[in-house]
Amino acid sequence: MPEQPSPRFHEAKIRVRFAETDQMGVVYHSNYLIWMEVGRVEYCRARGMRYRDLEAEGVLLTVVEAHCRFIAPAKYDDEVIVRTWVEQANPRMVLFAYEITEAESAKVLATGVTKHFFCGKDGKLRKLPAEHMALFELD
Amino acid sequence: MPEQPSPRFHEAKIRVRFAETDQMGVVYHSNYLIWMEVGRVEYCRARGMRYRDLEAEGVLLTVVEAHCRFIAPAKYDDEVIVRTWVEQANPRMVLFAYEITEAESAKVLATGVTKHFFCGKDGKLRKLPAEHMALFELD
Amino acid sequence: MPEQPSPRFHEAKIRVRFAETDQMGVVYHSNYLIWMEVGRVEYCRARGMRYRDLEAEGVLLTVVEAHCRFIAPAKYDDEVIVRTWVEQANPRMVLFAYEITEAESAKVLATGVTKHFFCGKDGKLRKLPAEHMALFELD
Amino acid sequence: MPEQPSPRFHEAKIRVRFAETDQMGVVYHSNYLIWMEVGRVEYCRARGMRYRDLEAEGVLLTVVEAHCRFIAPAKYDDEVIVRTWVEQANPRMVLFAYEITEAESAKVLATGVTKHFFCGKDGKLRKLPAEHMALFELD
Repeated sequence: MPEQPSPRFHEAKIRVRFAETDQMGVVYHSNYLIWMEVGRVEYCRARGMRYRDLEAEGVLLTVVEAHCRFIAPAKYDDEVIVRTWVEQANPRMVLFAYEITEAESAKVLATGVTKHFFCGKDGKLRKLPAEHMALFELD
Repeated sequence: MPEQPSPRFHEAKIRVRFAETDQMGVVYHSNYLIWMEVGRVEYCRARGMRYRDLEAEGVLLTVVEAHCRFIAPAKYDDEVIVRTWVEQANPRMVLFAYEITEAESAKVLATGVTKHFFCGKDGKLRKLPAEHMALFELD
Repeated sequence: MPEQPSPRFHEAKIRVRFAETDQMGVVYHSNYLIWMEVGRVEYCRARGMRYRDLEAEGVLLTVVEAHCRFIAPAKYDDEVIVRTWVEQANPRMVLFAYEITEAESAKVLATGVTKHFFCGKDGKLRKLPAEHMALFELD
Repeated sequence: MPEQPSPRFHEAKIRVRFAETDQMGVVYHSNYLIWMEVGRVEYCRARGMRYRDLEAEGVLLTVVEAHCRFIAPAKYDDEVIVRTWVEQANPRMVLFAYEITEAESAKVLATGVTKHFFCGKDGKLRKLPAEHMALFELD
């Protein structure tokens, strides 16, 4: 995590669902990857672009790598905050970083990154069109 | 459930995943719908047709209704058996029925039905092509 | 659905996640059951009771039956509204009903019901304590 | 990946479910974490220990870190093989590694690792009891 987070992050709020828990009484770990997806979709929306529109234009973000550190368990009905920012980007790749906290206590639950390549509807790699550079801080 | 089950049912075995449990210590109920999907896919395969091939030919089974009775909880690592059969069918619709049991004890965990319309890749309703009638016992 | 819905329903908003779609390009049907769970949790919260507190007191709502009609597909990034109300209840059972609509068009996507028995942490059936009768319109 | 994989790995076969796909027409990435869980559970079973029994004894493997590289997409109805082995372990921690391949083509779809601490039912960290050392190659 950067010591001075960029002001360009976005925070998405998520209420933990019962379906997301497991028999250890906490959130099953794969759900954090889904929350990160929510985080980057809301990051895009907050910057003026719906990911669905990007996709309709033929710009898809395929996930090529994911890393997550699970620090403290999220619990049923907690409100969690997914803070999302672009850690690194170029016209072929974007690396999103995330910090997930429990809203009430501000306790950090998890941190993670996901690396994406831009690709077309055919699944082939492509360069990000110039008009979308700003979305990923490439302006 | 029919008193004399048709010999035309298929049984699929599924090992309960940790991810499928919830904090009540049992399988979260929406997963039974996923197991029923596994059941009907394996029903088709056992009758010589992969659902993926049916789909490639432009014959999709859209779910229009689902009903499930939860009788006893499935638990983590249980081996469950999904018995699947065609309860009713015509060239526009098929009604699958299911009985889910715990393999070791043969205890019934759930029963259910799902109703499907045949549709094309465009999402529009269509009639089942004649060559696939037998798959749904319409021969 | 009742012709004159009780004013005692609650509406929960849910943004469709990418993870909830399937390769037909629409929401996979088992997710509607999860949204219904979100609906009844928010119903309780709106009436002053967190389901987590009810559970902590040893009053659990086990799902014994679920029924869902899928009318039109929900799509990625749609905002859907889950309208939830108590259709029927007694001290041993509650039947929740749901209507799921797409927020922008108000198009009905699905309707459903889930039937629950009250049980304790030991999984045994129990009667709803008197102080919680109002929550389920049993006052 | 080790150049000469230890003979002590285990291979689990998984049939891709429709529910696991997303609207890109491939498996949604968080499901790989669930498959890795299946992989390590089957690894334990193959070595004579059911994870459920370990858990019943109060030895839980909490996930503290996960990393996954997505190399090629898994598709609906593919049979995938999750090869699982212990990459590193000590009485407080075990690092599982995974290679996920498509069974028919032997194409590598993903590789990953998950790091686990041993903890008790109370969620507190604990040392692995001596009698289970062999399970994690600590003999």
